[in-house]
Amino acid sequence: MFSERINRLQGSLVREILAVANQPDMISFAGGLPAPEAMPKLDFTGLPDNLSQYGPSEGEKWLREAVAAEMSKNGVKVGAEDILILTGSQQGLDLSAKLFVDEGTPVMVEAPTFLAAVQCYSLYGARFVEVPLTATGVDLDELERKVKSERPRFAYLIPTFQNPSGVCYDEAARQRVADLFDEYNVTLLEDEPYRELVYDQCDRAPICARLKKASWIHFGTFSKTAIPGLRVAYLACSPDLMPHLYKLKQAADLHTNRQGQWAMHKLLTSSDYPAHIARLRQFYHGKRDIMAAALDKHFHDIADWVKPPGGLFFWLKLKANIDSYDLLQPALDRKVAFMPGKPFYAVPRVSNELRLNFSHASPEKIEEGVKTLAEVIRAHL
Amino acid sequence: MFSERINRLQGSLVREILAVANQPDMISFAGGLPAPEAMPKLDFTGLPDNLSQYGPSEGEKWLREAVAAEMSKNGVKVGAEDILILTGSQQGLDLSAKLFVDEGTPVMVEAPTFLAAVQCYSLYGARFVEVPLTATGVDLDELERKVKSERPRFAYLIPTFQNPSGVCYDEAARQRVADLFDEYNVTLLEDEPYRELVYDQCDRAPICARLKKASWIHFGTFSKTAIPGLRVAYLACSPDLMPHLYKLKQAADLHTNRQGQWAMHKLLTSSDYPAHIARLRQFYHGKRDIMAAALDKHFHDIADWVKPPGGLFFWLKLKANIDSYDLLQPALDRKVAFMPGKPFYAVPRVSNELRLNFSHASPEKIEEGVKTLAEVIRAHL
Repeated sequence: MFSERINRLQGSLVREILAVANQPDMISFAGGLPAPEAMPKLDFTGLPDNLSQYGPSEGEKWLREAVAAEMSKNGVKVGAEDILILTGSQQGLDLSAKLFVDEGTPVMVEAPTFLAAVQCYSLYGARFVEVPLTATGVDLDELERKVKSERPRFAYLIPTFQNPSGVCYDEAARQRVADLFDEYNVTLLEDEPYRELVYDQCDRAPICARLKKASWIHFGTFSKTAIPGLRVAYLACSPDLMPHLYKLKQAADLHTNRQGQWAMHKLLTSSDYPAHIARLRQFYHGKRDIMAAALDKHFHDIADWVKPPGGLFFWLKLKANIDSYDLLQPALDRKVAFMPGKPFYAVPRVSNELRLNFSHASPEKIEEGVKTLAEVIRAHL
Repeated sequence: MFSERINRLQGSLVREILAVANQPDMISFAGGLPAPEAMPKLDFTGLPDNLSQYGPSEGEKWLREAVAAEMSKNGVKVGAEDILILTGSQQGLDLSAKLFVDEGTPVMVEAPTFLAAVQCYSLYGARFVEVPLTATGVDLDELERKVKSERPRFAYLIPTFQNPSGVCYDEAARQRVADLFDEYNVTLLEDEPYRELVYDQCDRAPICARLKKASWIHFGTFSKTAIPGLRVAYLACSPDLMPHLYKLKQAADLHTNRQGQWAMHKLLTSSDYPAHIARLRQFYHGKRDIMAAALDKHFHDIADWVKPPGGLFFWLKLKANIDSYDLLQPALDRKVAFMPGKPFYAVPRVSNELRLNFSHASPEKIEEGVKTLAEVIRAHL
């Protein structure tokens, strides 16, 4: 006999798609995998022996200092004591769920939002309060209405190159969200995995830096810019939350692997790292433009989209009102994988949207896959 | 406002002791730290670049195969598909709590038991059902009574060099536990972090290998025999549990760090590893005997204990009926740290017991610390 939460342990749709998508002959627009050829080289030379022992639950001091310095540069004035090193930012979702979510707790999310956040908060029994997105960020009038009427315990937002929509909140939206959360005492959980993957000018100043009263957690990761396999990420938070998050981290896995923290710190502080980030942006910028051109060519009459100013995804809305989930099997039969819109909504609905990743496939495969996918859709219409 | 479980997030006693115990002039018998001088050398030479990408949630195939082969040698006939790689065995506690524990769920534990298990299961709202220990394992009559009357959803047991008591279940106890759990359908969670640290002959065949019907999870780790800082551990389980544990693992941190899995696999499969384990046993065996001699000399008239046949701890019961927690500050004032008995009991009680670790301090410091601790106790009486 299992716990009640196992009834809420969500299904295998995404995992199944990703499993199929990893077949070697498949063109995959499904996952969010960084391109292996764009990853920096790991170097464990000089790894100190004293990191073999158990380490501190909060993470290594030198890595926390480096993260705090970087966040301060981005406008979030924090010290090492405000940083908690995580075993991947997925762990941040889990710790925040433990901190905040009981069965029935109102949790505000964007619609659409990151599917792993939906899965994680669902597991703990969250009741989702959705706020739709516009081209310039979350719908502010709707946000205010829902904040007042639903009193969410926290809001989970992805303001910079939102996953899956690609939206980047403009400055007015960022300030208004901060003001509302201060006024109504809503805790902000700000997830920014893609903030360094910027291709066009836009406001990327974290919302948490604008808060005056509300509590907040800011999640960051090195998985999109460096080495996902190391499982090293971090959070920064307001001082009231750290004592609890620290204990929850300790209860979850004692601490994050120290060798990974060391190798990541070595990468981050290497003289080449700024140039690596610049190269990475240029590389993904090129791939985004290749997918944009392919979409212009093959999708102009069957879907609408906005070219994302950063991140790893295009978010397409079909002109026809069909369930994009029904396109999945026909597309897989033609060896193209994508993510249908459905699992990105916290409150289940039919969606005529598709998320297409452009970081992983080669330029030739992007063109070929987009063409094939358009054929599949036209055949279905 | 936090979740209800935060009210159950347990206190800082242990963390405070360990923080103080890590001061450089302190003789620490408090933690369970392996000796750094007994750790094998980590070698990342040859690390494949393709491990930089995201990896499988269940862990790397080659490591799962190596673990399954080792477990099969120990009598637990499993394949790689029955192994889940964990980010430290602490994560196993968390995943099992998620799988089984709702508020009020009856959870059977030994009295005393591993304090981190108490903390973890408490967080999820466990109602503990304690069964006392005897010199040959858990009290079997009491176990049967409690299984019948309390119907625990699972039992968390540490049959081999139990922490903190050092008890190793004999063969009859192992068989009887298996029979009872099969008969009453109690899921067994068997935690064996210390099984390789054996100094005297005793039965170490895992209980899960004797089960015919009941579900089970077996936790194992490399933290006590190799490199705790890597955070690589594993579980094996009955096939009915794996689909849920796999999803819970994915929701917790996607997967365990791949570079750590690779380095651990390299260590495990190196030609020197069996000799390393033999050296480690000899080294800790020597330290155990040094602490045993010091205790015989300084504690013979103030405490009772059994020399542990394996593991890392002595468990002392004072002859006087005093709260060993009251000895902590006087001992710390004299620069000796130990763990009082109290936090090892799932159901709070006063304890006149002490746990002393012998793996971390040097032979000279063991003698000096035991002598000082005896003086502190005599002064207190």
